[in-house]
Amino acid sequence: MSTTGHILLAHGGGGQLMAELIHQVILPALGAEKSSGLYDAASIRAGRDRLLLTTDSYVVQPVEFPGGDIGKLSVCGTINDLAVCGGKPVALSLALVLEEGLEIELLRRVLVSAGRAAREAGVAIVTGDTKVVERRGQPGMIINTAGVGVPLPKARLAFERIGRGDAVALSGPLGQHGLAVMCARKGLSVAPALASDCAPLHRLAADLIAALGAKVKWMRDPTRGGLAATLAELSSATSRNVEIRQRDIPVDPTALAAAETLGLDLLSVANEGKLVAVVAADAAQKAVEILRRHAIASRSAVIGAIGEKADVPLVELLTRAGGRRVVQMPYGEDLPRIC
Amino acid sequence: MSTTGHILLAHGGGGQLMAELIHQVILPALGAEKSSGLYDAASIRAGRDRLLLTTDSYVVQPVEFPGGDIGKLSVCGTINDLAVCGGKPVALSLALVLEEGLEIELLRRVLVSAGRAAREAGVAIVTGDTKVVERRGQPGMIINTAGVGVPLPKARLAFERIGRGDAVALSGPLGQHGLAVMCARKGLSVAPALASDCAPLHRLAADLIAALGAKVKWMRDPTRGGLAATLAELSSATSRNVEIRQRDIPVDPTALAAAETLGLDLLSVANEGKLVAVVAADAAQKAVEILRRHAIASRSAVIGAIGEKADVPLVELLTRAGGRRVVQMPYGEDLPRIC
Repeated sequence: MSTTGHILLAHGGGGQLMAELIHQVILPALGAEKSSGLYDAASIRAGRDRLLLTTDSYVVQPVEFPGGDIGKLSVCGTINDLAVCGGKPVALSLALVLEEGLEIELLRRVLVSAGRAAREAGVAIVTGDTKVVERRGQPGMIINTAGVGVPLPKARLAFERIGRGDAVALSGPLGQHGLAVMCARKGLSVAPALASDCAPLHRLAADLIAALGAKVKWMRDPTRGGLAATLAELSSATSRNVEIRQRDIPVDPTALAAAETLGLDLLSVANEGKLVAVVAADAAQKAVEILRRHAIASRSAVIGAIGEKADVPLVELLTRAGGRRVVQMPYGEDLPRIC
Repeated sequence: MSTTGHILLAHGGGGQLMAELIHQVILPALGAEKSSGLYDAASIRAGRDRLLLTTDSYVVQPVEFPGGDIGKLSVCGTINDLAVCGGKPVALSLALVLEEGLEIELLRRVLVSAGRAAREAGVAIVTGDTKVVERRGQPGMIINTAGVGVPLPKARLAFERIGRGDAVALSGPLGQHGLAVMCARKGLSVAPALASDCAPLHRLAADLIAALGAKVKWMRDPTRGGLAATLAELSSATSRNVEIRQRDIPVDPTALAAAETLGLDLLSVANEGKLVAVVAADAAQKAVEILRRHAIASRSAVIGAIGEKADVPLVELLTRAGGRRVVQMPYGEDLPRIC
């Protein structure tokens, strides 16, 4: 269905439509090998060592929003893709596609923010590119950042290592990025205090791996499609049920109020500074302690566990009221251009 | 002048305006160190070895044109950026920004072409990203490819190694890519037989370096801004005059006729499969022999030489009639969205 005809905005939403486009059109056309689960970064051999390579284009609108901007986002996002694959980020490229009519002062602010984010993260932006395209409406920009990282020696992250009883940890409340961008775009005042959680996760990830080594089995940052998409992919790639407990998921009251006003489910709203980690059950409390030492992860919690193998594996939410509901892979998207 | 106000299409043209934007806005805002000459790829240390990292976004319109398409272009262009920096390309990332309404069949053709180009070049596309943005007019797409390469052991390429008397070699006639795209875009029938020269240059570059080692001093593929921009940058970065001889520059009669009809200078039209190399004078003939063994470089020639140091270094064209004219860095661009 979604693999003929024309591209829809919903193909970019991080949900089922996008997964179909990637697996049924993009990968076969490129001649890529079949892959049951895709990671955020690829492992390559270059020189004597294995490296990680990742890429992301950022199309967020507006380009500046409470808590961040497209420059900081593009640096943090690519650092995070390396981090959740067990990589120490080493270098970034940054490629600009500018729309005619863009204010040069705005470009400057965004790049100052990108440069600052990179320096604070200890990662160098080493190469770039600049293109200009015709304007459309309010002139904006697109930034692509690719990143190279070196694998942390103790990292042993793979879907295949995940087993029954492993714990699912989350580094804080959900939805702040997506809701902050949405409110900024639409000029909504539902949640003036809401700011994007946009932040680099490499220090959290490195600390987890340094302390727990192979007991950390998989990590991901729940961006487009939110925690729902991340857990759906985890469940699908491992063929295992996943259960999360509503009462253990940290909630930001401002984000929750904004989501309720807008009729959105916090589980499927994009984040940019949150970490999901699957760790061995006996390391779960230690993992949460380690994460909580970081200000951006002070509300970390174990929110669920990996279940049995299943032919049609499900992600289930144990509600506060004691009920159960299936957490589905979002179909399209709640909001385009969120990252 | 060009560093306040708003972005113009001409800022993307590869000329003086773009150089000002990069050096006066982009690099200072990012907090990058001053650089007298920028290379197409950056050298980074990752693991035990040095690597090359490069990035380019491709915004060409139309996305399919005689001789190529945005998929092949994005693979070849990034391979070439690594190749001219003395790198053996190892892996590419490929990030798509699709416009709503794009035909999925067109996307498929472009990706098949990208995959084929990568396989033919022996380089793997290892990771990717997909975003969708709102349509504007005829829906198109943007592709970013970043590339990782390993330095060829014998490569010693640096502006600083260039001296008086070094030869400038060119691997074939100019302007085919830019003119083919321009004619395709405007539906011009001035040159129906004209096809883009879009091709990977890594085998040419590797053969040159294998045979001539340190006698190869610098390489570049003359894309946006054409040979004029490439030589202007060479002259500026070395503070040396450069002289090229019109009678020695290989010419494609179809491209020449198209350029004359359109009022363009072949020297400043974009190419995508041509190599410019500066080599020691005593290696110049050998370099041309090596290049000519490749079908895409069968008309290679020595076209000029490096001159004296100068406070205001000039690139000069010795015309067929025996006159001299200064070859200037193009100011803006002849044509936006050419690569």
